[in-house]
Amino acid sequence: MHQPRLVAVLGSGVIRDSGEPVLNADDLGLTRGDGCFEATRLLVHPGGPARVDHLGAHLARFARSAGALGIPVDEAAWRGLIATSVAAWTTPGEAVLRIMLTRGRESEPAVPPTGILTIAPLDARTVRQRAGLTVATLQRGHTADAFTDAPWLLGGVKTLSYAINVAAGREAARLGVDEALFVSTEGFALEAPRSALVWRQGNRLSTTRLDGTGVLASITQAVAFDAAAAADVPTAYELISIDSLGDCDGVWLLSSGRLVAPVLELDGRQLAHDDAWTGRLRKFVTPEC
Amino acid sequence: MHQPRLVAVLGSGVIRDSGEPVLNADDLGLTRGDGCFEATRLLVHPGGPARVDHLGAHLARFARSAGALGIPVDEAAWRGLIATSVAAWTTPGEAVLRIMLTRGRESEPAVPPTGILTIAPLDARTVRQRAGLTVATLQRGHTADAFTDAPWLLGGVKTLSYAINVAAGREAARLGVDEALFVSTEGFALEAPRSALVWRQGNRLSTTRLDGTGVLASITQAVAFDAAAAADVPTAYELISIDSLGDCDGVWLLSSGRLVAPVLELDGRQLAHDDAWTGRLRKFVTPEC
Repeated sequence: MHQPRLVAVLGSGVIRDSGEPVLNADDLGLTRGDGCFEATRLLVHPGGPARVDHLGAHLARFARSAGALGIPVDEAAWRGLIATSVAAWTTPGEAVLRIMLTRGRESEPAVPPTGILTIAPLDARTVRQRAGLTVATLQRGHTADAFTDAPWLLGGVKTLSYAINVAAGREAARLGVDEALFVSTEGFALEAPRSALVWRQGNRLSTTRLDGTGVLASITQAVAFDAAAAADVPTAYELISIDSLGDCDGVWLLSSGRLVAPVLELDGRQLAHDDAWTGRLRKFVTPEC
Repeated sequence: MHQPRLVAVLGSGVIRDSGEPVLNADDLGLTRGDGCFEATRLLVHPGGPARVDHLGAHLARFARSAGALGIPVDEAAWRGLIATSVAAWTTPGEAVLRIMLTRGRESEPAVPPTGILTIAPLDARTVRQRAGLTVATLQRGHTADAFTDAPWLLGGVKTLSYAINVAAGREAARLGVDEALFVSTEGFALEAPRSALVWRQGNRLSTTRLDGTGVLASITQAVAFDAAAAADVPTAYELISIDSLGDCDGVWLLSSGRLVAPVLELDGRQLAHDDAWTGRLRKFVTPEC
């Protein structure tokens, strides 16, 4: 059961074994979920160096999240910690690199924010789910424009406050499906708890509009859409109703770990899917594989 | 700046100094805000024992929150840890007892959930704010019935995922007021990020309806309403528009630390207030003071 895991703490310069606690009881990352994170895939070919997917884009989003929370980010320090940690990770195969930034300790406001990095093997369930997903829609409780002019609602900010995302995953499991898809009160598809939604109509790929929806700007989806545009595949950011989503020529959930997973079934309805397009999207996301 | 602080970990039976980390980097309380907490006031009279406010009610709500998250709670173990910790806390004055329960470590799913307890002096700002608050309304982005039949949205669950509550507090500070008051999309008053709303119309006290609103069932408010009912003051759980709230005979925010704080100003409008009613509410909440 026990797997290798690497833990590093920003500012300590020490790579620690996972058995050692690293966070204080009054750290606002624990007491309030007051912080942000990024997670991306790390790939080690036997004997080769570790390669991190889209590190620059993840660091840029990390800085945007931290900015929305008003927590300073020392990007040079993070780049140093990541380089040291990745160099120390030699386990062949896929892993997840996670970086977390919290506001720091409540009792020590003068102390810098807390930064923690972990690397651990990608879990087998995530890898399995790349083959295809059954999905159930879950109401998110807000309209598709609820986040307009309301920055305190932290729409699009990748915070450590993910309890609702976890609870939606539990609800999906209770319903006997692999994954949840959040829906706005008007019936528009939004995003999965930890993945972006992409759909195909003919030759055109679309994803959920970001403005006002609170949807996280997905790096995997952005990489795919950049490559699609370069291949003359039209792309769009828009809204789609759940009914229309069921009529699409293809639906996928994209994320940094699962990469490109086709949605095979939505609320019990079989969806159209085309392996050639799934392969094409995978090439867009990981051209070197 | 440094204040006394007590830290205890469930299952270790050890009272630790605050300088020592207690949480692993892969604890789901940190990585996902996946857990719940309670906070209540602790009072030590010089030479006397510490007294905890409404411990039974807090433990009952803790168990309800954990149940909503599907995390088991060992109530006997918590009662033991709380008794040992409170007995060890001798600093005279008011303090905050906080208990936190997380789903545990991602890499060690067989290990029991993580339980952490802290005691620290009540901060001076909280005590000051008992004198009265200036408040600004902030949109919460959902209707007043958004949580009906959607348990995965965790309405009324006191989770560790409090980033929006913290962000609302920052927005209030940016607006130059003491506190935020969340409002539904229809314009109904909901709750403050960490306090319940109570209003008075004539001889009648009201608070926000719980069903569907996602509002946390406040223990301080429940204690006040029980005492009010015993004193033949009528009470109600209902919805009130922000406009009507401004016309009330009194408005308060109730919480375990600030206890009963009158709202003196709402969105720049002076509110009616009556010190006798504030005193009466305080007696309801802390009859022995």
